[in-house]
Amino acid sequence: MSDRFRVTYRLQAVDEAEARSRAEAVAREQTVEIPRAAVPAGYVADVMLGRVEQVTPEGGAWRAVVSYSPDTAGGEVTQFLNVVFGNSSIQQGIRVTGIAPGAAMAATLPRPRFGIAGIRRLCARPRGGLIAPVLKPMGMPPEYFARLAAGCVRGGADIVKEDHGLASQPAAPFRARVRAVADVVAEENARSGRHALYFPNLSGRADEIEDNLHFAREAGAGGIIVMPGLFGFGTVARIARDAGLNLPVMTHPAFLGAWVLAPDNGFDHGTLFGTVQRLAGADISVFPNVGGRFGFSAAACRQIADACRAPAGHGKPILPSPGGGMSVERAADMTAMYGEDAVFLLGGSLLADPDRIDDAVARMRAALDGG
Amino acid sequence: MSDRFRVTYRLQAVDEAEARSRAEAVAREQTVEIPRAAVPAGYVADVMLGRVEQVTPEGGAWRAVVSYSPDTAGGEVTQFLNVVFGNSSIQQGIRVTGIAPGAAMAATLPRPRFGIAGIRRLCARPRGGLIAPVLKPMGMPPEYFARLAAGCVRGGADIVKEDHGLASQPAAPFRARVRAVADVVAEENARSGRHALYFPNLSGRADEIEDNLHFAREAGAGGIIVMPGLFGFGTVARIARDAGLNLPVMTHPAFLGAWVLAPDNGFDHGTLFGTVQRLAGADISVFPNVGGRFGFSAAACRQIADACRAPAGHGKPILPSPGGGMSVERAADMTAMYGEDAVFLLGGSLLADPDRIDDAVARMRAALDGG
Repeated sequence: MSDRFRVTYRLQAVDEAEARSRAEAVAREQTVEIPRAAVPAGYVADVMLGRVEQVTPEGGAWRAVVSYSPDTAGGEVTQFLNVVFGNSSIQQGIRVTGIAPGAAMAATLPRPRFGIAGIRRLCARPRGGLIAPVLKPMGMPPEYFARLAAGCVRGGADIVKEDHGLASQPAAPFRARVRAVADVVAEENARSGRHALYFPNLSGRADEIEDNLHFAREAGAGGIIVMPGLFGFGTVARIARDAGLNLPVMTHPAFLGAWVLAPDNGFDHGTLFGTVQRLAGADISVFPNVGGRFGFSAAACRQIADACRAPAGHGKPILPSPGGGMSVERAADMTAMYGEDAVFLLGGSLLADPDRIDDAVARMRAALDGG
Repeated sequence: MSDRFRVTYRLQAVDEAEARSRAEAVAREQTVEIPRAAVPAGYVADVMLGRVEQVTPEGGAWRAVVSYSPDTAGGEVTQFLNVVFGNSSIQQGIRVTGIAPGAAMAATLPRPRFGIAGIRRLCARPRGGLIAPVLKPMGMPPEYFARLAAGCVRGGADIVKEDHGLASQPAAPFRARVRAVADVVAEENARSGRHALYFPNLSGRADEIEDNLHFAREAGAGGIIVMPGLFGFGTVARIARDAGLNLPVMTHPAFLGAWVLAPDNGFDHGTLFGTVQRLAGADISVFPNVGGRFGFSAAACRQIADACRAPAGHGKPILPSPGGGMSVERAADMTAMYGEDAVFLLGGSLLADPDRIDDAVARMRAALDGG
């Protein structure tokens, strides 16, 4: 019983009877997917069938907790998410607001390999907010990104992050770009005694992903960006589990948008950009910052940061990484909001003058350090 | 110019000026992701930057067509979808309502390997609706699924489909189940002169997927079910491209729900469950049928079927596969609605009496054939 994992859903329903009926329907839909009368007695009915643990009113809707056996998930994160919300995600008025994996499931899921402490150790930044300038735009050649990256390291970047739109375009194929940028980051680190980590953006056809991961590692990448909305959370888990590869994972929210935009469907912000990322093994979770162009509220951003860092969460606490809307002028506010354990992305504003990106990064470093 | 692919977005905006401004923002967001003034002149500004082709009023909102260079997508479907809707999916009031790949992009994307004609040939059903009973529930052993599958073949099933919830659970690990069911389907086909195809549900950790695909093929699977919401559309494309594997792909909508539920976000139904599946190389696209428990409208279902089968669409026309709400009593209505070129899923209703599943399938066959 205590071994079952628990998913909390917010259900729209006119009364408790309907809410309870919807919760029972979710418990069936996510597991046996047959009418209750047809569920075989014994193991299937007693263990595999989802079980409604609680239905209570909550702010004009209903909070339903459904428990599932770890056997339904077969020990891996893709099927775990399929049980959490595979088919029910297609029904109106059901939103996942919490996932508690329980001890048995937690033991078979991947864990963040590095977490906050591990990333801080790798980039030798024991305290203070972390800075991650972004290499872009797509269409420029590897030498351009290498030059930008060198400036970022000189300026004091902790992570040199590629834009999630850099794939394997003709002007900068994945391998040529990764090699060029990794080399220059290593050189600048050696020259300056810094420890900036270069995170290329994982891309390629499905059957190239394995080779591209190993290529990135061997070229000297210090981590990797994965878009789970496009590549699946299984890809995050696959990297997190791999002690040989030993690569930190930064997840990016591209192609995940619809999951949070409608208030009565999908996942709440903290669950998707915090809890789920951590359950899949991410070390850093990128999400759209309040005040940027994506309209996330301050409350949603705080919920994400809390889910990323909650000591009681799955595995090591991880770094929330608000993207967009960051500037020297906002540095104090952002530190007040997120505290020090965050990776602040620095995007388009830096690239107004690419030749002075080192100064721009250094100013941000000083601003974050209260200078 | 004619080589650019075109994405149609429905934008919420108060007036044409705002709509145009939003369209320009999408064109930047999906490509260079930097302010217009910072976009390097030449190739990046002229080719890589998205281009607003048209903004027109449409039913209380705005229809914006943005064109992109195939260079942005680097020749593969994951990055193609990232350009179509990666970051803009996170903004309120933007819905993708059409994707026209254009000749150059279409030439580099995968294509459905079999399509309607190919699937009909494989299961020797030149005309009439196709029947696909579903093996479930999770928690039963391989022998149970094998017995069900045998009954399905005897009854005249065209495709014996696994439930999308069957993964690699303790009671029926992927390989043991696939082997047992494939063997019995081959035996029953041989005995009865039928040509039923067995479609197992692809599952496993990311680094097991390749081996599981080959295992399924060698065990005798006639196709494979993929959940692109969980495994990514790149996995669909990877299978579609593989002439050696030569496996039909049936895509399942699990974990894609939020993309269509909110009317002003995500994708419209036809684009997600028709156009996108076809662009990724699916041969059969499963979606929730009208009148079932998912609330899709008849119009949405027709839009999906049309996008799957439109002769002018990408590659071969593919089979729409409405799931849920199918019964002998509804067979005539369903044929009237979808025509013959559809795969009708038969789920929970069949399993009320698992020992007579052959009769149930045979009755459905007769009903579809107007008997």
